[in-house]
Amino acid sequence: MATVAELGEFALIDRWRTRIGSAPENEVWSGDDAAVIASPGDRLVLTTDVLVEGIDFDLRYAEGPDIGWKAMASNLSDVAAMGGRPRRAVATLTLRPDTSVGLVDGILEGMLELSGRWDVGLVGGDVSGSPTLSLGVTVVGVAETPLLRSGARIGDVLCVTGELGGAAGGLLALKDGRLDMSGLIERQLRPAPRVAEGVALAQAGASAMIDVSDGLAADLDHLVSPSGVGCEVDIESIPVDPALAGVADLIWPMEAALTGGEDFELLVALPEERVGDATEALTDLGTVLTRIGRVTQGAARIGSNSISEWRDKGWEHLRRP
Amino acid sequence: MATVAELGEFALIDRWRTRIGSAPENEVWSGDDAAVIASPGDRLVLTTDVLVEGIDFDLRYAEGPDIGWKAMASNLSDVAAMGGRPRRAVATLTLRPDTSVGLVDGILEGMLELSGRWDVGLVGGDVSGSPTLSLGVTVVGVAETPLLRSGARIGDVLCVTGELGGAAGGLLALKDGRLDMSGLIERQLRPAPRVAEGVALAQAGASAMIDVSDGLAADLDHLVSPSGVGCEVDIESIPVDPALAGVADLIWPMEAALTGGEDFELLVALPEERVGDATEALTDLGTVLTRIGRVTQGAARIGSNSISEWRDKGWEHLRRP
Repeated sequence: MATVAELGEFALIDRWRTRIGSAPENEVWSGDDAAVIASPGDRLVLTTDVLVEGIDFDLRYAEGPDIGWKAMASNLSDVAAMGGRPRRAVATLTLRPDTSVGLVDGILEGMLELSGRWDVGLVGGDVSGSPTLSLGVTVVGVAETPLLRSGARIGDVLCVTGELGGAAGGLLALKDGRLDMSGLIERQLRPAPRVAEGVALAQAGASAMIDVSDGLAADLDHLVSPSGVGCEVDIESIPVDPALAGVADLIWPMEAALTGGEDFELLVALPEERVGDATEALTDLGTVLTRIGRVTQGAARIGSNSISEWRDKGWEHLRRP
Repeated sequence: MATVAELGEFALIDRWRTRIGSAPENEVWSGDDAAVIASPGDRLVLTTDVLVEGIDFDLRYAEGPDIGWKAMASNLSDVAAMGGRPRRAVATLTLRPDTSVGLVDGILEGMLELSGRWDVGLVGGDVSGSPTLSLGVTVVGVAETPLLRSGARIGDVLCVTGELGGAAGGLLALKDGRLDMSGLIERQLRPAPRVAEGVALAQAGASAMIDVSDGLAADLDHLVSPSGVGCEVDIESIPVDPALAGVADLIWPMEAALTGGEDFELLVALPEERVGDATEALTDLGTVLTRIGRVTQGAARIGSNSISEWRDKGWEHLRRP
């Protein structure tokens, strides 16, 4: 398999250009100084994330398409958490000279596989040599009424989409060679951003929203702190991924849900009277919305502990209490 | 001086957040899942560039502010080359754990120093650990009538802004310890993107434009090839940076101009009847526009050589013919 050093930068870019598809008539994608895109609306959302080899992904466990998918997923999830629709993306790749062209092709394929599902055009990018492989993605979307973290109001109901902890469980399964745990591994390698759910929750009248990328405890803090409120979360109601039973000897499933991160579910605050509509809208999308607690005037608590205790205790102290 | 590992990711992001300035009322900058920005128009330009330590910059010669400035400059230059106006930016940083907080502050300062000049808001970003320091910047701008590379027409006049070769000369001066060559060194470390000039050239009725980032020979090729035309460039007319006289023992000044790159001047094709207006508009900006040749039906030539000869000969064969 050829390396990127053998292929060269311009040939690599040409190779990409042929695979990203054609621009609509009023747009210009890769190949000029900058891409030209039709503005998708009056209020844009803009987000960027970078994944680094050895830090954010590990080539022992993830293949090129997994890496491309995940970099795109984390950005689409950020747009989703604003109640926005992602529209266009650009990417930067830093490549070791000995990186195989196949790996680079795989990264592109993974990005396109996910971006294509949401009709997000990958319109351009940049490549540089580097001692370290990394992939940065920036996404532009549209949200006429963006849903901020800071909008949670006392009395709102806190809900979360789907199930939590699976991504952390998947990483443990990969590291322990439990390749039969395909459900968990898919949660780790191919997280599904809740794009349609984010739009539906915004339309249903949510007050505030965030994606669960750092673990429920940290992301609850990221929601209630800017809102200037507290919360009471019923620990029994947290939808822990049942597949975590398969790695329960490695991690307490609730710990994975509270501190694991990378699940890319949505945590949302809804006025009580909007919960019914929101639940119904998500049911239509095949996604369960679970009520886990309420926004309060007091401290931020999960069960009988403060959020900061859950956050600070971390892996060791949260293990099998 | 503290390192980024000591400070931690969230504290680092908070430190940035306080320095990027306040969002206008209808926008939300750093701090939520994504930034929210007002769309600057119907047709957006979108571009991204990544700089990597040891490849695109060298900490022996460049300080933090230089790195931040240059990453921003290369993106603003891309927007300028479309005849667009840059409006908002996001950045990704990958940081070695032992990176000093001072270096990171400097990078931010350099980005803000340049973005502030063009009223470009730095609205968000992402940070990851990495064995390699890198900085990625993505810029969103607006261009109602974007100027593509492919628009050059037979008979158009080819012009270039400013002077060429200085950036390459500056790198040689730095490597050779000639720190008195401050003009050349500034061209290398603090390139000035031709933002106002790009808009003016588009308004003056240019046919095609590109920024000179790979050297005049390569970028001429990048302009005439997509346009399906050739060119005749008068080698005597090329505005070679006169300060290159100070490093003429290290490089043939014309070689620096033709193959050096990173000058971030604009190469533009203009209908003959538009050259007068364009020249006048740039004079008002204090920038010289130099006529260097013409777009033709034939081969692409600089002096008596083909562009590909200039490109392929490279440093060795172009040296003092």
